Amino acid sequence: MRLATYKKDNEGSTSWGVEETGGTVIDGPALYPTRDEAPATLLELIQGGPDALSRLRSLVAASDPETSMKVLDPVLLAPLKPGKIIGVGLNYVDHVAESSRSLDTDASLPTRPVLFSKPGTAVVGPNGPILHNSELTNQLDWECELAVVIGMEARNVAVEDALDYVFGYSIINDISARDQRRSGQWFFSKGQDSYAPLGPAIVLRDAVTDPHDLDLSLLVNGVQMQNGNTRDMLFKIPQLIADITSGMTLEPGDVIATGSPQGVGAAMDPPQYLQPGDEVVATISGIGSLTNYVTAVTAPINHVTEVAAQ
Amino acid sequence: MRLATYKKDNEGSTSWGVEETGGTVIDGPALYPTRDEAPATLLELIQGGPDALSRLRSLVAASDPETSMKVLDPVLLAPLKPGKIIGVGLNYVDHVAESSRSLDTDASLPTRPVLFSKPGTAVVGPNGPILHNSELTNQLDWECELAVVIGMEARNVAVEDALDYVFGYSIINDISARDQRRSGQWFFSKGQDSYAPLGPAIVLRDAVTDPHDLDLSLLVNGVQMQNGNTRDMLFKIPQLIADITSGMTLEPGDVIATGSPQGVGAAMDPPQYLQPGDEVVATISGIGSLTNYVTAVTAPINHVTEVAAQ
Repeated sequence: MRLATYKKDNEGSTSWGVEETGGTVIDGPALYPTRDEAPATLLELIQGGPDALSRLRSLVAASDPETSMKVLDPVLLAPLKPGKIIGVGLNYVDHVAESSRSLDTDASLPTRPVLFSKPGTAVVGPNGPILHNSELTNQLDWECELAVVIGMEARNVAVEDALDYVFGYSIINDISARDQRRSGQWFFSKGQDSYAPLGPAIVLRDAVTDPHDLDLSLLVNGVQMQNGNTRDMLFKIPQLIADITSGMTLEPGDVIATGSPQGVGAAMDPPQYLQPGDEVVATISGIGSLTNYVTAVTAPINHVTEVAAQ
Repeated sequence: MRLATYKKDNEGSTSWGVEETGGTVIDGPALYPTRDEAPATLLELIQGGPDALSRLRSLVAASDPETSMKVLDPVLLAPLKPGKIIGVGLNYVDHVAESSRSLDTDASLPTRPVLFSKPGTAVVGPNGPILHNSELTNQLDWECELAVVIGMEARNVAVEDALDYVFGYSIINDISARDQRRSGQWFFSKGQDSYAPLGPAIVLRDAVTDPHDLDLSLLVNGVQMQNGNTRDMLFKIPQLIADITSGMTLEPGDVIATGSPQGVGAAMDPPQYLQPGDEVVATISGIGSLTNYVTAVTAPINHVTEVAAQ
């Protein structure tokens, strides 16, 4: 089953539902006997835990295709705004190599997951803009990644139990302004508004046979830049969940961005970065394609006074 | 005015209110004519914007001290769980110098704020535990910092308007496991559960005459480790807000941890770190004291398989 957040049209109000083959969406809240019982958002559904998901499954199974509220041409939005997004840097061997050549990172493989974060405010949905602010960056880059959506509160989870805590999978594009690393910290370079395109839907865990055998690719204006497979993750999903939850509670709706294979713009010779007008398509087999458009920010930007001027 | 989140006693339910001199709390929700009108949490009050705060002020002004619901000995909790906490590293000149000697950071002053983040799950309240997991760290360190609580959605804010977006001030202790930096990234070293003690209350903006003239200090078991003043911030609060919002939306309830003066454990000779049983008291003049106790984690920890073993 695939779950999506959507609007009926650009003017419509936001709802969520079950995405069918062909792209139609069966409205979720309309499946419930009363609106009071229906989760208002996908995040609320996830927060309801396994019981809420079982209830949804029964309602879908019992629904009448003739009378369900179907939306033929939905405008898909980001499935949810996570409480936190935890990114994993340098999690594909070939990307470790290219990063060490171009991004001042270590050439040796990390012995522990390299964790960073993006805030929920960075999320943008399918077909949404990736903001290009030329006063802040000339090095806007892409990274196609498998997004793991957490389904239950997770703390101190053992590797062998870890996948039980996964609600489903999606695609996240880990956008970076490479020139906004601050004393090596990636938060501002990776956490700005629109730097976390997410979607187009969440595919439930049981609908993905093997999350470590999915092809990933990324195209800019139709040209393939990245092409990899999740089998090449250095730290696999159960290890990531075990490692993160050894010190940090994961909550329902939290997202782990599991890292990107080689083919980022910074590592090209010469480096290639995103420009206003570019179309960026991140695709993962079995999950779908997430398309976004690089958009120039024209609002005036406030600059911080340089320390020297104080 | 000072606002706090509290319980009447350890068994009580959580509420919020106005903290008076002497430590009593006037229950907030009880001030409103109907419970429906009352914000359920401090975060909800803040999300209500300036109108909600004005309404609260009128209710407090009109309240009868004889009949208000007063709680004499409240158990204070963290004022709120922020959507995001943005930390500012290396924001005091003397701390830049000590960090360069002990923590592999640059000796020159940063020319842009060094931004990192802690998730909301890292927050713990007054008298709460700072978790010490000896399987993860032997280098648990402290940093007393002025916390700025954002009051309105802020995007592209000019330096001269920035303080309008501040709801109030509190204390945050930026706890770090120095040995959990991952390829230089601070997120896991600073973002673990309990690594963001916050409180004891939020002092409204207009009750702080000058946020850039506040004494900060931190004591471990009664011994003073840090002693500074917010006037020595490299990037002042308006600059931080302008810089962050040039690329990242701040939402009501978001917190900026504005950096710490010298006196961290890593920079001592020999280095000194927190141990189970330690009492840590962070104090900021005009705001109060935030006390926490370092507590050993005894639960089994799951280790990530080393890459070499794959």
